[in-house]
Amino acid sequence: MPRRAHKAWAGRMAGPTHRLVEAFTTSLPVDRRLYSYDIAGSIAHCEMLAKQRIVTRAEAQRIVKALQEIHTELERSTFRAAPSDEDIHMAIERRLIEKTGAVGGKLHTARSRNDQVALDLRLYLKAESARLIEQLKTLRRTLADVARRDRAVLMPGYTHLQPAQPVLLAHHWLAYAEMLLRDTERLTDCRKRMDVLPLGSGALAGTTFPIDRIYVARRLGFRTVSVNSMDAVSDRDFAVEFLAAAAIVGMHLSRFAEDLILWASQEFGFIELPDAFATGSSIMPQKKNPDVAELIRGKTGRLYANLMNLLTVLKGLPLTYNRDLQEDKEPVFDSVDTLSASLEILTAMIPVLRVRRERLCAASTTGYTLATELADYLSSNGVPFRDAHRIVGQVVRHCIARGLTLESLTADQLRRFSPHFRPDVRTWLSAEAAVRRRRAIGGTAPGNLPRQLRRHRL
Amino acid sequence: MPRRAHKAWAGRMAGPTHRLVEAFTTSLPVDRRLYSYDIAGSIAHCEMLAKQRIVTRAEAQRIVKALQEIHTELERSTFRAAPSDEDIHMAIERRLIEKTGAVGGKLHTARSRNDQVALDLRLYLKAESARLIEQLKTLRRTLADVARRDRAVLMPGYTHLQPAQPVLLAHHWLAYAEMLLRDTERLTDCRKRMDVLPLGSGALAGTTFPIDRIYVARRLGFRTVSVNSMDAVSDRDFAVEFLAAAAIVGMHLSRFAEDLILWASQEFGFIELPDAFATGSSIMPQKKNPDVAELIRGKTGRLYANLMNLLTVLKGLPLTYNRDLQEDKEPVFDSVDTLSASLEILTAMIPVLRVRRERLCAASTTGYTLATELADYLSSNGVPFRDAHRIVGQVVRHCIARGLTLESLTADQLRRFSPHFRPDVRTWLSAEAAVRRRRAIGGTAPGNLPRQLRRHRL
Amino acid sequence: MPRRAHKAWAGRMAGPTHRLVEAFTTSLPVDRRLYSYDIAGSIAHCEMLAKQRIVTRAEAQRIVKALQEIHTELERSTFRAAPSDEDIHMAIERRLIEKTGAVGGKLHTARSRNDQVALDLRLYLKAESARLIEQLKTLRRTLADVARRDRAVLMPGYTHLQPAQPVLLAHHWLAYAEMLLRDTERLTDCRKRMDVLPLGSGALAGTTFPIDRIYVARRLGFRTVSVNSMDAVSDRDFAVEFLAAAAIVGMHLSRFAEDLILWASQEFGFIELPDAFATGSSIMPQKKNPDVAELIRGKTGRLYANLMNLLTVLKGLPLTYNRDLQEDKEPVFDSVDTLSASLEILTAMIPVLRVRRERLCAASTTGYTLATELADYLSSNGVPFRDAHRIVGQVVRHCIARGLTLESLTADQLRRFSPHFRPDVRTWLSAEAAVRRRRAIGGTAPGNLPRQLRRHRL
Amino acid sequence: MPRRAHKAWAGRMAGPTHRLVEAFTTSLPVDRRLYSYDIAGSIAHCEMLAKQRIVTRAEAQRIVKALQEIHTELERSTFRAAPSDEDIHMAIERRLIEKTGAVGGKLHTARSRNDQVALDLRLYLKAESARLIEQLKTLRRTLADVARRDRAVLMPGYTHLQPAQPVLLAHHWLAYAEMLLRDTERLTDCRKRMDVLPLGSGALAGTTFPIDRIYVARRLGFRTVSVNSMDAVSDRDFAVEFLAAAAIVGMHLSRFAEDLILWASQEFGFIELPDAFATGSSIMPQKKNPDVAELIRGKTGRLYANLMNLLTVLKGLPLTYNRDLQEDKEPVFDSVDTLSASLEILTAMIPVLRVRRERLCAASTTGYTLATELADYLSSNGVPFRDAHRIVGQVVRHCIARGLTLESLTADQLRRFSPHFRPDVRTWLSAEAAVRRRRAIGGTAPGNLPRQLRRHRL
Repeated sequence: MPRRAHKAWAGRMAGPTHRLVEAFTTSLPVDRRLYSYDIAGSIAHCEMLAKQRIVTRAEAQRIVKALQEIHTELERSTFRAAPSDEDIHMAIERRLIEKTGAVGGKLHTARSRNDQVALDLRLYLKAESARLIEQLKTLRRTLADVARRDRAVLMPGYTHLQPAQPVLLAHHWLAYAEMLLRDTERLTDCRKRMDVLPLGSGALAGTTFPIDRIYVARRLGFRTVSVNSMDAVSDRDFAVEFLAAAAIVGMHLSRFAEDLILWASQEFGFIELPDAFATGSSIMPQKKNPDVAELIRGKTGRLYANLMNLLTVLKGLPLTYNRDLQEDKEPVFDSVDTLSASLEILTAMIPVLRVRRERLCAASTTGYTLATELADYLSSNGVPFRDAHRIVGQVVRHCIARGLTLESLTADQLRRFSPHFRPDVRTWLSAEAAVRRRRAIGGTAPGNLPRQLRRHRL
Repeated sequence: MPRRAHKAWAGRMAGPTHRLVEAFTTSLPVDRRLYSYDIAGSIAHCEMLAKQRIVTRAEAQRIVKALQEIHTELERSTFRAAPSDEDIHMAIERRLIEKTGAVGGKLHTARSRNDQVALDLRLYLKAESARLIEQLKTLRRTLADVARRDRAVLMPGYTHLQPAQPVLLAHHWLAYAEMLLRDTERLTDCRKRMDVLPLGSGALAGTTFPIDRIYVARRLGFRTVSVNSMDAVSDRDFAVEFLAAAAIVGMHLSRFAEDLILWASQEFGFIELPDAFATGSSIMPQKKNPDVAELIRGKTGRLYANLMNLLTVLKGLPLTYNRDLQEDKEPVFDSVDTLSASLEILTAMIPVLRVRRERLCAASTTGYTLATELADYLSSNGVPFRDAHRIVGQVVRHCIARGLTLESLTADQLRRFSPHFRPDVRTWLSAEAAVRRRRAIGGTAPGNLPRQLRRHRL
Repeated sequence: MPRRAHKAWAGRMAGPTHRLVEAFTTSLPVDRRLYSYDIAGSIAHCEMLAKQRIVTRAEAQRIVKALQEIHTELERSTFRAAPSDEDIHMAIERRLIEKTGAVGGKLHTARSRNDQVALDLRLYLKAESARLIEQLKTLRRTLADVARRDRAVLMPGYTHLQPAQPVLLAHHWLAYAEMLLRDTERLTDCRKRMDVLPLGSGALAGTTFPIDRIYVARRLGFRTVSVNSMDAVSDRDFAVEFLAAAAIVGMHLSRFAEDLILWASQEFGFIELPDAFATGSSIMPQKKNPDVAELIRGKTGRLYANLMNLLTVLKGLPLTYNRDLQEDKEPVFDSVDTLSASLEILTAMIPVLRVRRERLCAASTTGYTLATELADYLSSNGVPFRDAHRIVGQVVRHCIARGLTLESLTADQLRRFSPHFRPDVRTWLSAEAAVRRRRAIGGTAPGNLPRQLRRHRL
Repeated sequence: MPRRAHKAWAGRMAGPTHRLVEAFTTSLPVDRRLYSYDIAGSIAHCEMLAKQRIVTRAEAQRIVKALQEIHTELERSTFRAAPSDEDIHMAIERRLIEKTGAVGGKLHTARSRNDQVALDLRLYLKAESARLIEQLKTLRRTLADVARRDRAVLMPGYTHLQPAQPVLLAHHWLAYAEMLLRDTERLTDCRKRMDVLPLGSGALAGTTFPIDRIYVARRLGFRTVSVNSMDAVSDRDFAVEFLAAAAIVGMHLSRFAEDLILWASQEFGFIELPDAFATGSSIMPQKKNPDVAELIRGKTGRLYANLMNLLTVLKGLPLTYNRDLQEDKEPVFDSVDTLSASLEILTAMIPVLRVRRERLCAASTTGYTLATELADYLSSNGVPFRDAHRIVGQVVRHCIARGLTLESLTADQLRRFSPHFRPDVRTWLSAEAAVRRRRAIGGTAPGNLPRQLRRHRL
C-alpha cells in the first residue's frame, strides 16, 4: 500500500483512502500554482525554527537547501506531485523527506496545513494584487495619453443613450481613468487586510513551541501578524474582498467595453478598430467585429461569479477550518487571470483605435444637445430655471416639427418664445462654447484637463 | 504571415491579428472538449448537403472520411489544434482542408459558426444531462437500499436543529431521495428545451441553400428544429436552465452533506465514517474528518456561481450572436463535472457509513420528543389542540425543572395537569408508537415505506 | 403580560419574548399578503377534519363561518394583525379564537405551521405563475400582431452589433416571442412541481390523526400529495425553480429592452417612442428618454438577486424546517411583482412604438450586409465556400477603400475577383432577394412567417 | 391634464405620460426615505447660489425657509408626494414652487437630478455606515465583555466540526470580534470613497454657472469633490462597495449564528437560550428554538443578493446616467436595515446566553483533543514531527479500540509506542496545560487575552 505511506496522517487510519476520495479531495491541479509561495513560507518558517533553537542550524540548512532544490525541480517540472499527495504542501514535504530523510519531518514542527495554506494564499494574492495595481496604473496612464491627444475633440455626451450635451472626448476617456483610480485605491485598501501573517496559528489554537512570529512576518514582508488563531485559520475575508474589488473593476471594464462596442458600430461610427484588433466571421465576408470588447464585457460574468462562489462557500461555516475552504483558490486564481488579461489587452488596444473626429464633432450638436445652453442663457438672464426649461422645451418641439436645428434659429425667432432672448444668444449656441463654459471643478471645460491628467500620469 | 492563412476570414483584413488578441479570444483550451460533438454534427451536415445535392456524393464521402480520421487523431492526440485556430471548429476545418484540399472548404456551405457552436453545446449537454439523470437515479436507488436496511431504526427528527419528534432513519434517507427525484424531473424537463436543432439557422438569418433540417435533426437525434433563426443563434436558455437545475441539485447535496457532517460529529455520533472515506490532519494525530461531505457542501459555491456567471453574461445583450456568448461553456462544463463527481462519491460513501443504531435510538426520545404525542392524546380526547399544547408545555417545564423524562411520569402525575389524562396515556408514550401512528400518506410510519421505496427502486 | 397570551407556545416558556425578538422575527409585514390562501387552506383542512370526524360538523361550521368573516375583515382592514402575532397564520388563529372561543383551538389539530406555510406559498405561487403565464401569452400575441403588421419591413440583422444580413423586422419581433414561449413552457413545468399538497406533513413527521390528504388536495386543486413529510416541510424547490424561471424571463426582457434602447437612439433611429412612453430631463429640455426600457433592463438585477437570495438561504441547511426558511417569501413576491409590471408595460408599449420603416429599410443594406449573398452565389456555382468567402472579403475591402457599395459593382467589375461571377449576380444583390431566399425552416423568408405566427396567436 | 403640469419636463412633450409609465417609473415609495438628505443638499446648494450671486440673498432666504417647512411637513406627514411626482426630488420641488412661486424654480439652477440623486444617496450612506460602524464597535465591546467573563472557561476547539484542541471560550468569542474589527475597517475605507461631493456635475458635463463646489462640500461635510462630471453622475461604486462590505459582515454573522445554533443543540448543549430569546412551536410543546440565530443566518441571502443586484444592474451600462441606476436604492436600504437589526439583536442576546461551563469543560478533552500535545511532546524531545504524529496516531487508535482516554494511559503504556515518552508526559496531558502552552502571539493562552481585549474595548 504505497499510497498510505504518503499520507501524513496515515497513523490514525486502519486502511487506505478510497480511490474516489483521493480524486475528489485533491487540490493539486489547482494549488500547484502556489509552490513558490509555499517554499518561501517554509524557508522563513525553518529559519525561524533554527533561530529559536527548535531545530538545529545544521538541520535548518539541510532543509532550506533541499527546499531550494525542490523549487528548481518544480520550475523545471523534473519533480511532479502525485495524486496521492493531496495537495502541493504535502507533495513538497514528501519530496523534502525523500531528499533529507527524517530531518525533513521536522519542518512541520509548530505549524499546520491550516495556517500554511492561509499563508500561501496571502503571499500569492499580495503579489498578484500589486501587479494588478500596476496594470491599472498603466491603463490609466494610457487613458491620460489618449485624453491629451484628444483634448480638442468634441463629442456628444449621453444620458439614457440619448445625446445630452457636448463634451470633450478627453473628458470621456478620463471618466474611465477615474473609475480605475478608485479601483486602485480599493485594491490598495484590500491589501492592508491581506498583509497579516497567519503562520503560527497552528491548526486553530496556536502552537506550544516558542516561535517568533514577528521574525517570520518581517522575513516574508508582512506588515503585522494575526492576533487570534481561531480567526486566522478560518479567515478568507482578504480573498472575498479581493474578489469584490475585482468584480467592481470588471463592472467598469464592462461599461467601457459597451461604449467601445457602441462607438464601433456602423450607426455611431465614432471609432474604427485596427484589423489587428478585430475579428471576422466564418460566413459573412464583410464582418469586422469588436470581439475583444465583447469578451471583456462577457468576462464580467466570471468575475461576479467568482465573488458569489466564495461568499456561498463561506456562508454558515462554523469555526474554525472546514474543508469547504479548499474551494477558495480557483475563484481567486480565475479573477486574477481574467482581470490581468483584460487590462493588458485594453492597454494595447486603446491607443490604436482610430478616432473618427469629424463624425464625433458633427454628432456633438446633433439631437439638440445645445438646448441646455439656451435654458442656462435664460436662467442667467433672470428667468427661473424651471420656466427657462419649459420655454426651451417648446423651442425644441418647434424645431423638430419643422426639421430645424437650434443653431439655425435667429434671435428674433427665439424671441417669439421668450423676450429674454437677446442677440448675444447666438454666440452661446456652439459646442465649443458649451464645453468651454463648464469650468467648475469636474466640468468638461478644456481648462479642467490638466488637473485631471495629473491624477493619472504618475 | 502563416498565421493569417489560418483565419477563415483573413480575406477581409489588411493585416494579421495581434498576438494578444489571439491569446485573449481563443476558446480552444475550453471548447476542445466538444470535438466529438463537432465532428458528429459536421458529418450529419455533410450527408444532408449530399442528399440535397449541394455537394456531390463523392465530395461528401471524402469529407466524412477525413472527419472520421480527424476524430481518431484528436482521440489519440496525434493532431493538435494551434493557438491561431481560434476554436475547435476552425481547427477541425483547417485539418480537413489539409487532408482534402479545396473540397474541405465546401463543408461550411449553408452553415455558420454561430449555429454550429450552438449545436455542439446542445449535443454535449443532452448527453451529459442524460448521464447525470442516470447518476441521480443510482443515488436514489442507493438511498432506497439503505432505507430498506434501516427500516427499523428510530432517530430523532429535527426542526431548528432541536429534537422534534421520533422518525425512522429510513424516512430521513428517503427525504433526500425525494429531492433527487425532483432533480431528475427538472433535468428531464430541461432536456426537452435542449432537444431542438439550431443548425441551419446560419449566422442569424437562415441560409439560402435548400437544406433539409428535419433530416439533420433525425440523424443527430433531436426531437425538433428551431423555428426562428435569430433566436436560435443567440439562445442559451438551455444552458442557463441546466445550470439552475444543477444549482438546485447542489443545494440538495449541500443540505445532505450538512446532515452527514453533523451526524459524524462527536456530539451527535450518529454515524461513523469508514477510514477509506475520512481524512486526517497534518498536525492533530487523532483527527478523522468528514472532508468528502465538507467538499460537497463547499462545491455549492461553484454550482451557484456558474449559474450567476451565465445569467450575467446574457444580461442586456442585444440580438443576435455576440462574442460574450463564448463564455457559456466553462460554467456548463464545470457544473457537469462537479455534479458528476459529487454524485459518484456520495453513491459510493452512503452504503458504507456505519450507522450507530443504538445512539440514534437512544436519542429518539431525548429532548422530550414525545411531547406532541401527549398533546395529540389530549386533543383526541376532546381538548382543543391549542389548550392541549399549553397543558403539555407546562408538563415539559415541570419535567425540565426536576430533571425528569416524560416517559417517567405516571398517569396520576399527568392528571395533575389535566383530568383528560387516563391510564392508557402511558402506552402512547414510546417512540415506536409515535412513529407507528403517523400513518397518513407522507408520515413516518413503517407502513408507508413500501410506497416510498417503490418510487426510487426502478 | 398580555403579549405572552398570544403566543401559541407560551406554555413552555417562563417569561415573555424580548421586544427585539418580536420585531426581528415577525413575518407579518411580508406574509400578510398570503391571508386569503391561508384561510382557503384552513377551510379545506377544517372540512376534512369534520369529514374524518376529528371535529364535529357543528364545530367545523362555526370555524368555517368565522374564517370567512375574518377574510372579509382582512379585506376591509377592519381586523389588523398585531406585532405579537408573529405571522399571518397566528394572527388569523388568534382572531378565530376571539370569535369562536375554545373550539377555534381545534383548527390546528393535525397540522403544524410548517406544513401550513408551505401550503400557503404553494397556493399563492400556483395562482401567480398561472397569471404570469397568461401575461406572457398576451405579450407573445402582441408581438405576433406587430410582426404581422411589419411583415414587409426590412432591416439589418446584427451580430456583434455590426450589420450582418438583412432580415424582416417581423422575424426580429418573433425571435422575442420564441424566448417567451420557452418561458411559458418553463413556468408550466415548474408548476407541476408546485402542484403538490404538503399539508398533512405536520411539523416534520406526519400526524397521528386519521386525516384524508387526498380530499384536501382535491378541495384545493392540487394534482397530488407529497409522500415524505420531512422533505415536504423543508422543500422550497418550487420557489427556487420559479425564481430561476423568472430570472430567465428577466434576462430575455433585458435583451429586448437593450434592443429597444439602441433602436430609439439618435444613431440607430429605428423607432420613436410616443410621448406617453417617454420621460424627460430635469435640466436638458430636448430630452426624450426610453426610461421604461431602461428600468426593465435594470430590474434584471433584482430578478437575478432574488434567485441568489433563496439559493443562499437554503445552502447547507440541515433537515427539516429551520427558521431561515422564513426568508423565502420576499424574493418570491418581489419577482412576481417585478415580472408582472414589466410584462404589462411592455405589452402596452410595443404596439404604439412608431417604427421608422424607411430608416430600417435603408439600413438593411448598409455595411455590406449583402456580402454573404455574393459568397453563397459563388458557392452555388461550385466555388468551395471557404474560397468564396475569401474572394468576397477582397471585394468588400476593395469597395471600402473606394467608398463603393456592393450593389453598385457591375458583373464585369466582380469578375476581376472571380471568373465565376456571371451577369445574373446583380439580381442576387438585393435585400428583398436575400430575405426571400432564406426559406429553410427558421429562416427569415416571408414564407416562413405564417408558421411562426401560428405559434403565438393562440 | 393636471398630471402634466407637475412634470418638470412637460414642455418637450405633446401629451401626458401613460398611467402605466407613471406607476412603473416612480421611485417615490423607495426614495421618500431620502427626503431629509435631499433637503439638506438643496439648502447647501441654495446658499452657495446666493454666495455666488447666482440667486439673490432674498431669494435664497425664501427658498431655504420653504425647504425647512417642507422638511417639517414631511416629518409630520402633512405633505405627501403624489404619484405623478416621479420621485422625492420632484415632489419637494413641486411643493417648493407651491409655497414660493416662480422663485422656487431657481433652486434647480446649476444642478440636475443626476448629480442631486447621487448626492442624496452618498449623504444617506455616509450617515448609515457611520451608524453601522458604531453598532459593530458595540458588538465587539460586548464580545470583549463576555470574553473577559469567560476567560477561564475551557472548551473544545473544532476543525471540520470534529474536536481538535482545547481552547478558551474567550478566544472563540474574540475570533468573532476580530472579524467584526475587519468589517469596521472595511466600512471605514469604503466611506473614504463615499465621501466625495458629486453635486455640481450637472446632468453629465458640469455646469455653466460659476458655482463653488468646495463651499458646498464643506457645508455638507464632504472630504473632497469629484473631478470628472461624467464619472460622477454614473458612479455607484460607493454603493456596490458598501454592499460588498455588508455581505462580508453578513457572512461573518452567518458563521457566528451557525456556531450558536450548534451550541444550543441538545447534542452540543454548550449554551442555553433565555426564554426571552427563544421561540416555540405551534405544535410541539417541548420546543425552544434558536430562531433569532437562524434568521440572522437566513438573512445572509438578502445581503448577498443585494450585492449581486446592483452589480447586475451596472453590468454593461454605457456612460453616463441611465435610468437603470434608479434600482440602486432598494438594495442599499435593505442591506442597511438588515445589518442594523441583526447587529442590534446579537448585541442584546450574546450577554444573556447561559454558558454551560461544566459541559464545555468536560467536552474540552473528549475526542482525544490532547493528541497534539503528545506529538508536540515527542517533537520537543527530538522526534521529527512527522514521526511523532504517526506514533501518536497509533496511540489514539489503540485507545479507541479499547475505549480508553489518552489521559488514562500511564507513561509506561505510552512508552510501548515510543521510548521518548518519559514520566513527565502525564503533566502535559491536561486541557489547562495545553491552553497555557499556546503562548505565541495569537495563541489561545490566557496570557494573550489582555492584548486581544484591548483591541475591542475602546
